[in-house]
Amino acid sequence: MLRQLCCVLAFVVPSGLWADPLPSWSESRAKTEIVVFVEAVTDPSSEMFVPVADRIAVFDNDGTLWSEQPVYFQLIYAVEMLQDKAASDPSILTSDTLKAAAAGDWATLAQGGKEALIEVLDVSHSGMSVAEFQANAYDWVTTAQHPTSGLTYAQMTYQPMLELLSFLRDKGFATYIVSGGGIDFIRAIAEEAYGIPPEQVIGSQGALSYQVVDGVPMVVKGGGVVFVDDGPGKPVGIMRHIGKRPILAGGNSDGDLEMIEWTTSGDGPRLGVLVHHTDADREFAYDREGHIGVLNRGLDEANDRGWVLVDIAQDWGRVWSGP
Amino acid sequence: MLRQLCCVLAFVVPSGLWADPLPSWSESRAKTEIVVFVEAVTDPSSEMFVPVADRIAVFDNDGTLWSEQPVYFQLIYAVEMLQDKAASDPSILTSDTLKAAAAGDWATLAQGGKEALIEVLDVSHSGMSVAEFQANAYDWVTTAQHPTSGLTYAQMTYQPMLELLSFLRDKGFATYIVSGGGIDFIRAIAEEAYGIPPEQVIGSQGALSYQVVDGVPMVVKGGGVVFVDDGPGKPVGIMRHIGKRPILAGGNSDGDLEMIEWTTSGDGPRLGVLVHHTDADREFAYDREGHIGVLNRGLDEANDRGWVLVDIAQDWGRVWSGP
Repeated sequence: MLRQLCCVLAFVVPSGLWADPLPSWSESRAKTEIVVFVEAVTDPSSEMFVPVADRIAVFDNDGTLWSEQPVYFQLIYAVEMLQDKAASDPSILTSDTLKAAAAGDWATLAQGGKEALIEVLDVSHSGMSVAEFQANAYDWVTTAQHPTSGLTYAQMTYQPMLELLSFLRDKGFATYIVSGGGIDFIRAIAEEAYGIPPEQVIGSQGALSYQVVDGVPMVVKGGGVVFVDDGPGKPVGIMRHIGKRPILAGGNSDGDLEMIEWTTSGDGPRLGVLVHHTDADREFAYDREGHIGVLNRGLDEANDRGWVLVDIAQDWGRVWSGP
Repeated sequence: MLRQLCCVLAFVVPSGLWADPLPSWSESRAKTEIVVFVEAVTDPSSEMFVPVADRIAVFDNDGTLWSEQPVYFQLIYAVEMLQDKAASDPSILTSDTLKAAAAGDWATLAQGGKEALIEVLDVSHSGMSVAEFQANAYDWVTTAQHPTSGLTYAQMTYQPMLELLSFLRDKGFATYIVSGGGIDFIRAIAEEAYGIPPEQVIGSQGALSYQVVDGVPMVVKGGGVVFVDDGPGKPVGIMRHIGKRPILAGGNSDGDLEMIEWTTSGDGPRLGVLVHHTDADREFAYDREGHIGVLNRGLDEANDRGWVLVDIAQDWGRVWSGP
């Protein structure tokens, strides 16, 4: 009888009353602020109600949905691809940056800044169809081992954020990734890793061209970066792809600041979320300094701007989706 | 009793048996081929069945979803905007092309080819937020009058194609516009005119920048064209936005050829559709010659490639959505 009653009630009672949508989050202020916001904008009787068409949530990827230390995972992949390519054709190593990358000289590579990273991505990722690249990237992300955690990269997605993405989708949100990383790389795993289909992934873009090779039409990755989806590029990337302003944005670094600023400055209810990497035991601890995921303005301004600061050590009961 | 039976059956019988999904199409081969394809790929018991996630249909806009004569509607709008802008600031007319456009000298403008069109679009559409531009464009499309039909431009969408878009969506397809026209212009009206939300509109793109103006964050249209979504650019635009290959593509000119070629060359069931403008009485008749919507290869190759050629005079019982 109780079982039958549950079956009936399941159709008429909001699921939120029956199950915690964010079980990997500690019962902290951050969790409460997020849940209260989502419940309010999806409750037709609330003054904060937002129609489904406008329930757009955008998230940075590196450091927000999965880890980004010791360097962006895509860069580790790019260096390995470059090494593979150079083994059969050393003539592709046309600069000191590329030679350093192929030699695994991360220190030199880091000194080269963003330009060096782009050069390595550019040369390692070009000259194949998007489909071929993605099959290779998927294989790497799901089988290669991270240097310190011993997990696969796919296992280093954040369990609390996976729950947040599912919670938002259950509440009628469209969930997008808006990443400084390469759009084709992220799309290779986004559906399986995050439940996010390719058309809801926005990222930096290399040149593409349409070619008919031996009678087979295909879209091929070429050289050159045509769009950098970072900093002020993030609102631009969102406008290009989605064509309207989100109501919820999450990130972890100052490269996400403009995206969160733009998202939270429109009319009506809006929420900004910043993940703060505070947990050297379970993940990594970093913020104001370094070469990856630097967070200064976000830390200084989050409180005044009313953005939710998520402290990994305090707010997450579990970090990675993997074991 | 009959009424009750109908109510019950409505849940178990495919709706196709009860109502014609394409009432404005004549009972011709083109209609049959389209309906048979859509029914087959959405029938779970069919060998041609395609899962919902892969049911992606893409359509050109000018000449495929609405008219494009005597010139692309967006160009008429751009010339009017340029005239308005030049009235208050004549210094923006820095070239012979711009001066001709502002003087309404269409002959000179047409001689300038694609570069001239882009220059006019570029100068007339820049220097305002995307939101401001779209409010203005929406107003124009829904109130300004076409020079020969006397209809508003919004009334010159094709009723048979609106029915096809609805039919496809009812069958679980995602319907996209993939246009050589400007993405922001089409998005201004696509939801109301076609039921297509902004994130499913792909088009040519001008530069955008993120700016905080008097404390208000906004995305602003700048000068310069960063992406031309035409010809081989269409498969590239689709790959950038959707990230996978559609299974149905419709167009009306050789600028759509690569899109239809790529769409119809993948594995599994695929459909290509070309609208042929054959009706000088009710719309316009043009194909192999002229400066807009030229169709040569499509006419020559459609049969061999198995693409459906839609003859407006024969296949459409009604043309425009407007009166």
